Amino acid sequence: MASLTKGMSFNNPEVIKFLDEAYRLIKEEALQKGTSRDYPVLEFMHPHELESTLDLEITAEPASHEQILDAMKNIIRYSIKTGHPRFHNQLFGSLDPYSQAGAWLASSLNANIHTYEVCPVFIIMEKYFFQKILNIVGFEHGDGVFCPGGSASNFFSIHLARFKKFPEAKKNGLFGSAPFRCYASEDGHYSMQKAAIFLGLGMNNLVGVKTDGRGHIIPSELERCIKADLDKGYTPLMVTATSGTTVLGSYDDLPAISKVCKKYDLWLHADACWGGGALLSKKHRHLLKGSHLCNSMSWNFHKMTGVPVQTSVFLINDPSKKLLEEANSAKAEYLFQPDKHYDTSYDVGDKTVQCGRAVDITKVWLQWRALGDEGMEARIDRGFENARYLTQKLRSTEGFRLVLPEFECTNVSFWYIPHRLRGQVEDNKWWQELHKIAPKLKERMVKAGNLMIQYQPLSTKGFVNFFRIIILNPLCGPRDMDFVIEEFERLGKDL
Amino acid sequence: MASLTKGMSFNNPEVIKFLDEAYRLIKEEALQKGTSRDYPVLEFMHPHELESTLDLEITAEPASHEQILDAMKNIIRYSIKTGHPRFHNQLFGSLDPYSQAGAWLASSLNANIHTYEVCPVFIIMEKYFFQKILNIVGFEHGDGVFCPGGSASNFFSIHLARFKKFPEAKKNGLFGSAPFRCYASEDGHYSMQKAAIFLGLGMNNLVGVKTDGRGHIIPSELERCIKADLDKGYTPLMVTATSGTTVLGSYDDLPAISKVCKKYDLWLHADACWGGGALLSKKHRHLLKGSHLCNSMSWNFHKMTGVPVQTSVFLINDPSKKLLEEANSAKAEYLFQPDKHYDTSYDVGDKTVQCGRAVDITKVWLQWRALGDEGMEARIDRGFENARYLTQKLRSTEGFRLVLPEFECTNVSFWYIPHRLRGQVEDNKWWQELHKIAPKLKERMVKAGNLMIQYQPLSTKGFVNFFRIIILNPLCGPRDMDFVIEEFERLGKDL
Repeated sequence: MASLTKGMSFNNPEVIKFLDEAYRLIKEEALQKGTSRDYPVLEFMHPHELESTLDLEITAEPASHEQILDAMKNIIRYSIKTGHPRFHNQLFGSLDPYSQAGAWLASSLNANIHTYEVCPVFIIMEKYFFQKILNIVGFEHGDGVFCPGGSASNFFSIHLARFKKFPEAKKNGLFGSAPFRCYASEDGHYSMQKAAIFLGLGMNNLVGVKTDGRGHIIPSELERCIKADLDKGYTPLMVTATSGTTVLGSYDDLPAISKVCKKYDLWLHADACWGGGALLSKKHRHLLKGSHLCNSMSWNFHKMTGVPVQTSVFLINDPSKKLLEEANSAKAEYLFQPDKHYDTSYDVGDKTVQCGRAVDITKVWLQWRALGDEGMEARIDRGFENARYLTQKLRSTEGFRLVLPEFECTNVSFWYIPHRLRGQVEDNKWWQELHKIAPKLKERMVKAGNLMIQYQPLSTKGFVNFFRIIILNPLCGPRDMDFVIEEFERLGKDL
Repeated sequence: MASLTKGMSFNNPEVIKFLDEAYRLIKEEALQKGTSRDYPVLEFMHPHELESTLDLEITAEPASHEQILDAMKNIIRYSIKTGHPRFHNQLFGSLDPYSQAGAWLASSLNANIHTYEVCPVFIIMEKYFFQKILNIVGFEHGDGVFCPGGSASNFFSIHLARFKKFPEAKKNGLFGSAPFRCYASEDGHYSMQKAAIFLGLGMNNLVGVKTDGRGHIIPSELERCIKADLDKGYTPLMVTATSGTTVLGSYDDLPAISKVCKKYDLWLHADACWGGGALLSKKHRHLLKGSHLCNSMSWNFHKMTGVPVQTSVFLINDPSKKLLEEANSAKAEYLFQPDKHYDTSYDVGDKTVQCGRAVDITKVWLQWRALGDEGMEARIDRGFENARYLTQKLRSTEGFRLVLPEFECTNVSFWYIPHRLRGQVEDNKWWQELHKIAPKLKERMVKAGNLMIQYQPLSTKGFVNFFRIIILNPLCGPRDMDFVIEEFERLGKDL
């Protein structure tokens, strides 16, 4: 057995040699080639092909270092290069060197943010970080907690709104209450639906509020929904405004929605998972005007700011700084012993619903420290500049049609019209035909491997598939935007 | 702005130089020194001291690479070395070289497991992995999903049990239902309480079932609780059995509890977050005898198997393989487009409540591939051997008293009795005095920095603080167990 456990020691030279080679492989193949235009964004394989290409079997006997490194090489090769300047498929993506170092640092220290006893440094680091971003949002006396993803952060909004209004639900649950109703944009993120399911409210109690055709909640529609629910005997609980919708990138009007919320005493949550990054830019922070009026906000640093998945915060505008603890605490006697020898107010674990919590702070802290406020702002501004450039270009290029007249966030939505459909009467049949273009073009795009842009239909846009490009990688410039247009023409003109 | 974004490129030689140095620092300081007996487990500082020692301010201007590396050095220095062979404080800990490589690999590829489109490799890797562990548990036709921690996995048990029994709750919530009741051991983990709060059941609807003094649910007590609730008009929903309790390490009798569950048609969940690792050992898997009789199980690979926090699975004994999807799906049209060009059954994202999900599989897959089944078994067996050795030694050494007559899992609980309390009448006053010893000894231990072992009181053990040592690091041997005893005597004899 001694020989079997020898391979588990960092003081075994063979192990260190393996680690050095693993690092080199990750650096060269995943980070350098994976972000270079000289290499593809992906090498597509269908699931059954990939299954037979990857050697994923775990055997009774140990594998050699060579075998493991080979496996790692294959893993990298067939993984999507989400940090590549031509990966525009999703709201996450781009790779930051400092946040990579932060991620490795966190895993190597294998800390667990629940007690100061086992995690002193990162608890203090989080404290500093939250002070900084709470000030930026305008929750001067707020509080915050990292959550495992934006959905989890959004779950917290219902949870906290519910606790604030009906603290007895913590003990007795929802049985016997009049149904609580939550309101969100019909263009809002589906995590609010999942939150309603998971937290026991049920998805029928999440009301989708009509938008204005450009993705913004219509405040008068919101009020109409609330009134109708009050008439039916429901209990309106909270509103989720979206600061940067997933598909269209629309920012809700926070002051107008806040007014409605105040009138009916509802919690206002801003889902800024995607668009929160604009707060870091003097030029673009107006998009979240009124953020200080919200009761809570979720903000994913793994989106516009480009740190690895996932780095998500839930922020709460709570001068008492006690609401998170009161809503969540279970006071486990084995973890939060009151007779410890240090100031146990630093044992922050009972503020959340997780017990063990992985360290996410290092990814964003190291990045921000390295780039400074200036560098973070430059990242964001560059994304908006690219979006502006592309929007103008799409507007003036034959065969492309913008879904919205203007972009708000750094997502730009458009239809691509192949040659045979140009200059035709745009009747129902034409739109149905156009609907089928996107999946075909996407298949060609993925097989070519030079570009990744998502398509989807949208109920508010007649269910006709369109493309949505996400621009956040600071390595991108105008030439990359030009490339998008050229590649669409090359791949799609004969469709 | 070009100069500001230059620092964000992996093709900038300065950036690569920084990464090389960051890697070297992590390797030498966190991994090598951090797991060596020649270096301390921790350098304790009180929160206010640490705040002024760490330079955590983020400035407007970028920091130099030197400054960032200095910051990293300090972060490592003052972090607890949870991979150190003398860190026995918590159920996580120990560092595995291969799972470190797996963690770095995952962050560098920054994948997001929701669609095959953006995450082909890891979706297939998870599929293989789940087949393997479902077979080990005995859920041959089961299904599984990674969750952000053991608490989240436990949350899923209530969620799935609720959906199975009352699928309409997905749409309508819990309003108007008779209260659902969940049962767990009074020695069970507090995450079930948090689950009851978060999922809208309320903590009063989680019933703590009496244990037998050695941490096991008494099946007749369980049945008594269920009957009493039925009489009161409640709706019994599920039972959580614990396979390795947090403090005492006790394994519940799954076949006996399953019998009760079958009789009353209740879901049976096994919380094997801590003790699940025993399934990997032929010698010790009997501890989870009857695991195949459960409806679900949670199992943390970041505990007994020593991969970084967090790597937790929720497993479900569901031959239909549809329950996760049915309970959780919201069918977001922007993510799960039905007209994709590949087999969309590989788009697994709607099986869970997260949208973005970080990749955890690499940490355990690389470790297991490297060690083989044999190496994984050797890890587990070594932990049990050390626990056996220490238990015998504690039993025969003056001044130590075991809390339980025998150990079950690799946690061993004991009281340390300083010299002045030995040979006294053990009346109430004596026990009250003993209660105060542990915090004092812990303070000395932490300040000495050579060892970390947790203490806590337990309601079922008269609320008298005792120590609980967690043994899982495969680097540990008998000499490390001897060291525990010597260090307690050195630090505590005059208390």
